[in-house]
Amino acid sequence: MNIAIAQSGGPTAAINASLAGVYQRAVECGRIEHIYGSVNGIEGMINDELVSLENILTSEHDLDLLKKTPSTVLGSCRYKLAAYDPADSVSETEYMKIVGTLEAHDIGAFFYIGGNDSMDTVCKLDKYLRAVGKNIKVIGVPKTIDNDLPGTDHTPGFGSAAKYVATTMQEIIRDSRVYSIQSITIVEIMGRNAGWLTASSCVLRANGEPAPHLIYVPEAFTDGFDVEKFLSDVDRMMKRYRAVIVAVSEGVVPNEREYVKTGADAFGHTDNSGVAKYLERRCSERFGCKVRSIELNVMQRCSSHLASAVDIAESERVGAAAVDAALSGDSGRMMGFRRISNEPYRIEITSFDAEYSANKEKFFPEKWITADKSDITMDALGYFLPLIQGEVVPEYRNGIPVHFRLNQ
Amino acid sequence: MNIAIAQSGGPTAAINASLAGVYQRAVECGRIEHIYGSVNGIEGMINDELVSLENILTSEHDLDLLKKTPSTVLGSCRYKLAAYDPADSVSETEYMKIVGTLEAHDIGAFFYIGGNDSMDTVCKLDKYLRAVGKNIKVIGVPKTIDNDLPGTDHTPGFGSAAKYVATTMQEIIRDSRVYSIQSITIVEIMGRNAGWLTASSCVLRANGEPAPHLIYVPEAFTDGFDVEKFLSDVDRMMKRYRAVIVAVSEGVVPNEREYVKTGADAFGHTDNSGVAKYLERRCSERFGCKVRSIELNVMQRCSSHLASAVDIAESERVGAAAVDAALSGDSGRMMGFRRISNEPYRIEITSFDAEYSANKEKFFPEKWITADKSDITMDALGYFLPLIQGEVVPEYRNGIPVHFRLNQ
Repeated sequence: MNIAIAQSGGPTAAINASLAGVYQRAVECGRIEHIYGSVNGIEGMINDELVSLENILTSEHDLDLLKKTPSTVLGSCRYKLAAYDPADSVSETEYMKIVGTLEAHDIGAFFYIGGNDSMDTVCKLDKYLRAVGKNIKVIGVPKTIDNDLPGTDHTPGFGSAAKYVATTMQEIIRDSRVYSIQSITIVEIMGRNAGWLTASSCVLRANGEPAPHLIYVPEAFTDGFDVEKFLSDVDRMMKRYRAVIVAVSEGVVPNEREYVKTGADAFGHTDNSGVAKYLERRCSERFGCKVRSIELNVMQRCSSHLASAVDIAESERVGAAAVDAALSGDSGRMMGFRRISNEPYRIEITSFDAEYSANKEKFFPEKWITADKSDITMDALGYFLPLIQGEVVPEYRNGIPVHFRLNQ
Repeated sequence: MNIAIAQSGGPTAAINASLAGVYQRAVECGRIEHIYGSVNGIEGMINDELVSLENILTSEHDLDLLKKTPSTVLGSCRYKLAAYDPADSVSETEYMKIVGTLEAHDIGAFFYIGGNDSMDTVCKLDKYLRAVGKNIKVIGVPKTIDNDLPGTDHTPGFGSAAKYVATTMQEIIRDSRVYSIQSITIVEIMGRNAGWLTASSCVLRANGEPAPHLIYVPEAFTDGFDVEKFLSDVDRMMKRYRAVIVAVSEGVVPNEREYVKTGADAFGHTDNSGVAKYLERRCSERFGCKVRSIELNVMQRCSSHLASAVDIAESERVGAAAVDAALSGDSGRMMGFRRISNEPYRIEITSFDAEYSANKEKFFPEKWITADKSDITMDALGYFLPLIQGEVVPEYRNGIPVHFRLNQ
């Protein structure tokens, strides 16, 4: 039997570690002959674009570099399969192409590393294969910096992103306090609907750092973010701190009409500068002091030089466990973590019906948002801290981290 | 005799290492009794706001943490002394206050760690002290991520910023290549007039990475940046690369009228989103593909977790050498580096009249800009590479780097 692995969705620092985990266990188990990588997620399966991973990962050193390389070495996609409808032959075309690829390469199990959308693909493909009587296993391996997959305590990639956010936020805090003048710094963090990553910036308090002084997650503002309330929060903090630091999730939507208005620029383009930029303008207008907005942009999802060792090790483990699951006959399932305890930190690897995660989101819990919606409670620290522990030291050449590259 | 040290200008990852260098040599030399820190640069000298560094830096561990902490532990300022005019008693007021502070604390030497503006302060203060017959030495210790101080081969802080830019740029490159679609990523790097830091992104080529495919420094466009030429550069690269990466200095000014027009938002505020954002819009309009702009913002100047070991060690050494210079009777001088060779990398520490650097800028040399102004030549690698070598491993607590903080 052969297997195929694909990576999907947005990059993280840990998605290649899961690939390495699947690959290594597949090699070790002695039951798998060839290990293929599908180029650009499910698109590679549709178009029969496979690479032989044995030819690419030729040494322990390759595997080590792979685990330290961000983003997806096999490429990714945002491709969504149409639902299979037995009554509609057109809906079957793509599935038939995928089956063609699977059978042409004698692939008995397909591993899909991805987020909510990818789990939709796992479900649909598994259902189709069962419907047409093909004994090919499909297993989902979770990944997303958003930490928003239901069914798992946390997601591979999140811990590394959180470690980047905490480290960078602390450096921004140092930077912001340099002058003797009043200032406001607003840091925008990824998470369109789920505020996990933004909330995780509260971990600095474990080291006695009070900033960020205000933390806003989208879960607290499902009926709109009141900018006047925000300005009064900032005003309150300005009385206590010379350099006020705000963490805001990109998914927070100000309730002011101007937020939409600023959307069009001189070319009529939509302005994709986000909520932090908008709040910067509003603070500047209201307080007249130095105000700066900072987007952590793609760096927060691809900074493997700041990866969490716990995250990378778990990402690898969950990939290996996916192989075990497929070999034991599972299909249509997503792997996940169940937390046993915070101190000492212990988890176990689980699996469950991928349907449970497909197209669904797990939100940051209300119990960890303060009553006035401007902060995260200290209780959340116990959840976050274990996930950012340990460092993954890059290999350096010429003073720059070495990445594993498929096409040199 | 006692001494005082102050830090000035924009933050870097190395400015505290220079403070540690001055402090340690002052302790070791046996000729200095008390070591004061001036809070918020020269402002602390004017207002007699000094702290006793012996009371703050109480252990080797404190000093070690200090060297790994970005920004300025003593605070900073952008304060510029008015020129002293013997005929105008008002112009003397501030100088008299500074002398008051110096004499009240029996300070025989003042060390000012800063950039071009700070060297202006060094010159002015030294001239005044000489004019009024005070035997107090004033020594400038260079620092700036811009690398734009004349008289020195390079500046403390630059190597760490360049290491951050190279590492982060490489991660952005990995991130940008994830999908099978054509894309353009434009990364804006600090440097209003000097393109050193932007140019330094070329170091990735030492490891075989062709990106960034286009690098634009302000020195090449003193009479305006031709956006049409830029778009044709991008078009050319799009034919060779699926994911085109552009590095552009914040100081590059597009020659189109709309660049100014987009400056006003719905509130009539000036838009401080920069050149990368503008070029993103123009690429999006022209090519219709995925375009993203990224500002490395303050992270590029304060990321001590990615500091260059060479930079931090040199920053410390140059601080120590400043003490030696003052003790040997120098004043009104700036410390600097003279490069002896690239391979092996060797420098010696020099000093020269601070006037030579005050208010002046050293620009990126034309010889290292390609004829078509869209790239940096390979010759520049020999200059840049030695400056980004080696890593400074942070101390971690709770998975987060530990910073030295004056006010816990």
